[in-house]
Amino acid sequence: MKSMLIDRLVKIIGPEGVLHTPEDLAVYSYDGTFVESCPDVVVLPMSTDQVSQVVKLAAETRSPLVARGMGSGLAAGSVPLPGGGIVICLTRMNHILEIDTINAAVRVEAGVITADLQAEVEKQGLFYPPDPSSIRHSTIGGNIACNAGGPRCLKYGVTGDYVLGLKVLLADGRILQTGGKPIKDVTGYDLTALFTGSEGTLCLITEALLRLVARPKYARTGLAEFIFLADASRTVNAILSAGIVPATLELMDQTAIVCIEEAMHLGLPTDVEASLLIETDGSDEQTVIREIEGAAKICLENGARSMKMASNEAERSRLWKARRSISPALARKAPNKLGEDITVPRSAIPDVVQRLREISKEYGLPIVIFGHAGDGNLHPNILFDKRQPEQWVKVEQMVGEIFAASLAVGGTLSGEHGVGVLKRAYLENALGPLSIEVHRKIKQALDPLNILNPGKIFLS
Amino acid sequence: MKSMLIDRLVKIIGPEGVLHTPEDLAVYSYDGTFVESCPDVVVLPMSTDQVSQVVKLAAETRSPLVARGMGSGLAAGSVPLPGGGIVICLTRMNHILEIDTINAAVRVEAGVITADLQAEVEKQGLFYPPDPSSIRHSTIGGNIACNAGGPRCLKYGVTGDYVLGLKVLLADGRILQTGGKPIKDVTGYDLTALFTGSEGTLCLITEALLRLVARPKYARTGLAEFIFLADASRTVNAILSAGIVPATLELMDQTAIVCIEEAMHLGLPTDVEASLLIETDGSDEQTVIREIEGAAKICLENGARSMKMASNEAERSRLWKARRSISPALARKAPNKLGEDITVPRSAIPDVVQRLREISKEYGLPIVIFGHAGDGNLHPNILFDKRQPEQWVKVEQMVGEIFAASLAVGGTLSGEHGVGVLKRAYLENALGPLSIEVHRKIKQALDPLNILNPGKIFLS
Repeated sequence: MKSMLIDRLVKIIGPEGVLHTPEDLAVYSYDGTFVESCPDVVVLPMSTDQVSQVVKLAAETRSPLVARGMGSGLAAGSVPLPGGGIVICLTRMNHILEIDTINAAVRVEAGVITADLQAEVEKQGLFYPPDPSSIRHSTIGGNIACNAGGPRCLKYGVTGDYVLGLKVLLADGRILQTGGKPIKDVTGYDLTALFTGSEGTLCLITEALLRLVARPKYARTGLAEFIFLADASRTVNAILSAGIVPATLELMDQTAIVCIEEAMHLGLPTDVEASLLIETDGSDEQTVIREIEGAAKICLENGARSMKMASNEAERSRLWKARRSISPALARKAPNKLGEDITVPRSAIPDVVQRLREISKEYGLPIVIFGHAGDGNLHPNILFDKRQPEQWVKVEQMVGEIFAASLAVGGTLSGEHGVGVLKRAYLENALGPLSIEVHRKIKQALDPLNILNPGKIFLS
Repeated sequence: MKSMLIDRLVKIIGPEGVLHTPEDLAVYSYDGTFVESCPDVVVLPMSTDQVSQVVKLAAETRSPLVARGMGSGLAAGSVPLPGGGIVICLTRMNHILEIDTINAAVRVEAGVITADLQAEVEKQGLFYPPDPSSIRHSTIGGNIACNAGGPRCLKYGVTGDYVLGLKVLLADGRILQTGGKPIKDVTGYDLTALFTGSEGTLCLITEALLRLVARPKYARTGLAEFIFLADASRTVNAILSAGIVPATLELMDQTAIVCIEEAMHLGLPTDVEASLLIETDGSDEQTVIREIEGAAKICLENGARSMKMASNEAERSRLWKARRSISPALARKAPNKLGEDITVPRSAIPDVVQRLREISKEYGLPIVIFGHAGDGNLHPNILFDKRQPEQWVKVEQMVGEIFAASLAVGGTLSGEHGVGVLKRAYLENALGPLSIEVHRKIKQALDPLNILNPGKIFLS
């Protein structure tokens, strides 16, 4: 059966695009999480038409199909479930097909690395804002499948806010084009929005048409230090209430600052409960300056000990280096980390942070907290050693408590990573059984054979 | 059968909330279009629970259910189809349930008039941006069901961009809550986005949780006059490319300007092919001024004969009065008008306007053109006399030609009005048969008895 499948896939894609040795399969058995499971076969198609033929074959043979980009996901959405199936890796479909400067749109294949896409459109004076931390290695297809976020999403919105249209494969292999270049469109259901964030369970994305904006010409960056975290949280609301919308409003709590400083020696203040990294940007330098100055004033009025402004690009880089160093810095503190991405109403941030500290204390494992405070999107990272089985047991319990803390204040399980496998067991708590029933009905309607990334998000 | 239905509805809602005399039914037989058809009965529920019971009764008796707000729709989406059914009018559910100033969110019942909602949140320094022209009489529920737009949507986005969550009745009468206060949420499918703009065919909306922003404190407004329409169109792209995003970028063509001037005597220039009404707004006065000055400079560089700035609130009102007078002014020119709302890639505006002029000439009926040029959303209005049957025949043919002109350049049928009944016949041309099949599968999955606004958007 498996060798028949491989033979037929080779006929569709050619031998160089079909991988099936144990060593090759192992490479496609994991993502950015701890979940691992080998597929039966990996295909690397070059065109939507090839993907269509693979989907048709999968439908005929009832083979599970898992689409995958660079495997940087943080919810195991692109890891095949035990039992295998076909992994469709879209990284060879990495062409930018069209940059339309007049209508500010770009058409790309799903396998384009998001940073490459950004660099290309910036050459034309345009700007693709969403900036997940994985931007240098994750693909736009994966970003869309998970509706990825990032530090810049406070001002600019998430990936889904930029998806004008998609070329997708339905579960029977037929090709559907949704949306188009018009910015506004209420002609029928918003299938583009339904498919965005559906993690490969409703269709398989091979192309996207993305909205762009004018490239901001100026940016100003500062770091505000808060003795009390509650003041930092209050400041976030005060800045937004004043009508200032920074591109970035990033919170780092003391545990995060200490971690970075120990690893990087950047001169960060380790004696404060929190810091806020604030960046304003835009096409008018005076406006950008007025906004960062307005934000600084509000920080100082709301209890900031100081607001350090980057006075040149080198200082700005240093501040961003601090923010971007969190993950590597955590790796020095403990052999393993598990990062969640709960999103809560902004007003609940202080209570949730307090609760996270309690959970950490209760289980005796550190939780480092940072995230996109303007969005209420927090990344609590549990530090541990997976080689200690009792720590892993604790981590699993702590994750449950973190989700409970978020749901208790009207928060969600995930702001940008998706549900995948890891959050599946918590979905009913978050959405309720009726919502899951509606999810299942939509899944059943569009994928009656349950071959598209089966078992992800919810058990179908 | 009908009297049994009425008796049971009276038991649910009380006699004052159930209308069934011919005179009462006639009042609920039409919207903002020419389509008319009487329901069997109209109910005016006071709570989601009452609506739930009505939906359960409708499911039991297989009665079509049409939700309705103030009936200002422009696609006949809230007009029952011949054969009747139950109209659920939600205008008594008009309470603002919560204004959360810290998280910048408001929870409302579906029957709240959108302008009332705006006024209430503005008292708290907050702002609900979407501003359909019907804002003073349309309800937020209707706005969401159609994903309404408006002049301010260029900068701020459409209704759907502000919907954080919905309370809806599924087709079996069960109550589902989607979304919540967190701004970012990728926990499961985006049901909120799927339901927004679904025109009452997938569920019935009774409550909405809406995102707000800080109220802009300053605005500047100007009117640029263009001898050539192509220059006005080019200017729109130049302004946006420069990174200036005005709140409003409204195009009026010569036919629209002449109509307004004849009716209102506002001193508008009737010798130019087009004018652009431009407004910038924000929380920082200097920035708002710099932006309108930047836009004015670009207008003059791109062929504007002049850019008249409003120097005070009275002059600003006069400019807006001109824009808002278009519809009443058209009513003076001809007994009837039919307004479409095609949306095209911005670059295609000059060609589409040219084609609309040709269609007008070909059929001998005026087409007045205005719209949200920044969004590519044009409102071609055909002026005619419905009492002349041969004119009505022409109008129907002209509508087909207008849609064909939009689709030919990659445009859509509707940017903000929805499909309803009027654009249904054109949907397959716009989206293709496969998309319609997907629409039908979703509809069938969520409304297997086909009782929720049956026959709207597409024939189900």
